[in-house]
Amino acid sequence: MTVDTSVPDLEGAGAVLAAESARFASFGWMRGTSGNLSVVLSRDPLRLAVTASGHDKGELTPADVVLVDGDGAAVAGGRPSAEAALHARVAALTGAGAVVHVHTVASVAMGRREPGGIAFRDLEMLKGVGLPAHDVEVTLPVIANSQDMKVLGDRLEEARDPRMPAVVVAGHGLYVWGENPRQARHHTEVVEWLLELELTQR
Amino acid sequence: MTVDTSVPDLEGAGAVLAAESARFASFGWMRGTSGNLSVVLSRDPLRLAVTASGHDKGELTPADVVLVDGDGAAVAGGRPSAEAALHARVAALTGAGAVVHVHTVASVAMGRREPGGIAFRDLEMLKGVGLPAHDVEVTLPVIANSQDMKVLGDRLEEARDPRMPAVVVAGHGLYVWGENPRQARHHTEVVEWLLELELTQR
Amino acid sequence: MTVDTSVPDLEGAGAVLAAESARFASFGWMRGTSGNLSVVLSRDPLRLAVTASGHDKGELTPADVVLVDGDGAAVAGGRPSAEAALHARVAALTGAGAVVHVHTVASVAMGRREPGGIAFRDLEMLKGVGLPAHDVEVTLPVIANSQDMKVLGDRLEEARDPRMPAVVVAGHGLYVWGENPRQARHHTEVVEWLLELELTQR
Amino acid sequence: MTVDTSVPDLEGAGAVLAAESARFASFGWMRGTSGNLSVVLSRDPLRLAVTASGHDKGELTPADVVLVDGDGAAVAGGRPSAEAALHARVAALTGAGAVVHVHTVASVAMGRREPGGIAFRDLEMLKGVGLPAHDVEVTLPVIANSQDMKVLGDRLEEARDPRMPAVVVAGHGLYVWGENPRQARHHTEVVEWLLELELTQR
Repeated sequence: MTVDTSVPDLEGAGAVLAAESARFASFGWMRGTSGNLSVVLSRDPLRLAVTASGHDKGELTPADVVLVDGDGAAVAGGRPSAEAALHARVAALTGAGAVVHVHTVASVAMGRREPGGIAFRDLEMLKGVGLPAHDVEVTLPVIANSQDMKVLGDRLEEARDPRMPAVVVAGHGLYVWGENPRQARHHTEVVEWLLELELTQR
Repeated sequence: MTVDTSVPDLEGAGAVLAAESARFASFGWMRGTSGNLSVVLSRDPLRLAVTASGHDKGELTPADVVLVDGDGAAVAGGRPSAEAALHARVAALTGAGAVVHVHTVASVAMGRREPGGIAFRDLEMLKGVGLPAHDVEVTLPVIANSQDMKVLGDRLEEARDPRMPAVVVAGHGLYVWGENPRQARHHTEVVEWLLELELTQR
Repeated sequence: MTVDTSVPDLEGAGAVLAAESARFASFGWMRGTSGNLSVVLSRDPLRLAVTASGHDKGELTPADVVLVDGDGAAVAGGRPSAEAALHARVAALTGAGAVVHVHTVASVAMGRREPGGIAFRDLEMLKGVGLPAHDVEVTLPVIANSQDMKVLGDRLEEARDPRMPAVVVAGHGLYVWGENPRQARHHTEVVEWLLELELTQR
Repeated sequence: MTVDTSVPDLEGAGAVLAAESARFASFGWMRGTSGNLSVVLSRDPLRLAVTASGHDKGELTPADVVLVDGDGAAVAGGRPSAEAALHARVAALTGAGAVVHVHTVASVAMGRREPGGIAFRDLEMLKGVGLPAHDVEVTLPVIANSQDMKVLGDRLEEARDPRMPAVVVAGHGLYVWGENPRQARHHTEVVEWLLELELTQR
């Protein structure tokens, strides 16, 4: 089944985010009601559709979506997660059209082992995030967790490597972004694969 | 798909429990015929719908449910598991509206490694069971197993931390509770995620 | 969905075995075309329906079944696996009505670590194979592999513990049995769970 | 469900490859848009149908396929992956009728641990790739990665063991082949099972 990733309106965006959420939930990356996904609907002013807070991410409907502004404040729809502000900041900072936030065991486990960042090199899978497969080392940043989205966003901005469309939040999970929901999905899968690989090493 | 978690009657409760059981079974948390789920139907007198014993938990029908009293004795329906008495006690003790009992590998493996209880702190996922994500350590109790539900209930009552809606039974599995089946599901997923995280650590 | 485990005829038996095979294949326990399942159709003379050899075990049809005698020789249907002889011997030796043979990573990994047999005790899950949950140690035998079913059957007969309806074949996989396909399924799930638990221990 | 693995035409081949891809993707072996599958349509001249590049391998349609020649250059259809040239070379070199290339965590993890090749012996599962289950050691070659398909093909040709229808590309993934898509699938599952087994060993 091909998911239409065009986002003509809020409910259309909600349908895309619900399908993407169900996919990630099926992998066990959104246990409980954790994680949230967003897609940029306009740039000027910045508007994002973000999954509604508190729902089971495997059971979202197209209506379970909130329209937020560049500060993550609700413009339409229900209650956004506080993390909507970080989605908006990532979109503004990186130019990404879609942001994925998931709670994977591998990201938190590797963030513990490598609190200074997780280095990768010489892996074909790096091409899946636009990086060379050879001779270039790139570090997936690990930033300290915070409940203050301003603080968390500052850390993300300072730590991020423009070559790597992802950041691990220690004790928390993974933020990944891409041009659109489809690319953000693929970036997420690639980064999680890299983390699962490292987790097998002693 | 949204599962209706309202419980108007025994068969309605059975339908909810069958759907929740099928979900947990699909994760491999109810292998063989292990585990059982319950939902409180009335408080005074205490009445719970509990999944029937001996069935494959991935194949329950709405009729595979037993109505039990506060001692776990059958009021209507088939044969309850002896563990129904512990479900009833957890409901009476904690005020929970739903109880989940599953046999996960991670809970038994971590109960072996940390027989005195499994400490967690500084994890965003703790918010999924209503705990702070920072600076507060909370211990998931591990209690010794017993076939005597009175003994097991006494151990649970003595060991439980009111902040943590779950207990590991050593060599056995996990009891988790919540206000309703949906919340109990989410608490179960969160606690299991925490255990799987710890299991990756050396 | 409830699978009908009654076996009125060969095609009925084939339908049950196809459904059970698809279930085990979905767990990754029958990779390639590995493993085979059987159900006893008559005792005197001993006749078993066994899954046909060489097929993908996730795609069997009710016709992909062979009727074999007590030596595992074909009475009707296509080509049986050589292992049909071991199924027949297990049925004759133990009185089982159904036999499951799967290739799980955990069984081969644990057979390597514990070539003298894998001891279990004080685990609630042992009740799932009819054993006490407390104070009794039971050993899952590990026998050396052979392509000679007479040799393999002799090893199984000598090594088996009547309390434990399963044997690990080193470098090969798992044989498990029960009164009928449903119980054999549940015994298989329980034994595999026990092996996966041990595999997490250092 | 039985997938028809006959390949009468390009779209028929595309349908088979889409089904096989969806299967491997469901196992997590084609994360992001990684991996590609091919089937030989003619030998003289050599023509292969190869999955189109850049698509989600769980969402291919029968049209997402490219016809390539013995150099991996497109004859019909969209853009092939550069790796199509390696598929064609494997088909020419080994006589295989189908080639599977997947990115599994186990293959990359084991390639790191055993850069000189991964030795197997005394495993029943070896029969699934046509090898004896006893007394014969066979090595799954590990070759260094390259973006130059000529270089990669030379390494594969030099390193391959004719008894083993697979090669690990270090830091990259797995190439596996067979007479047809069904056999290539089964060989892939067997080799991955062997790698997952080794990964559990310390």
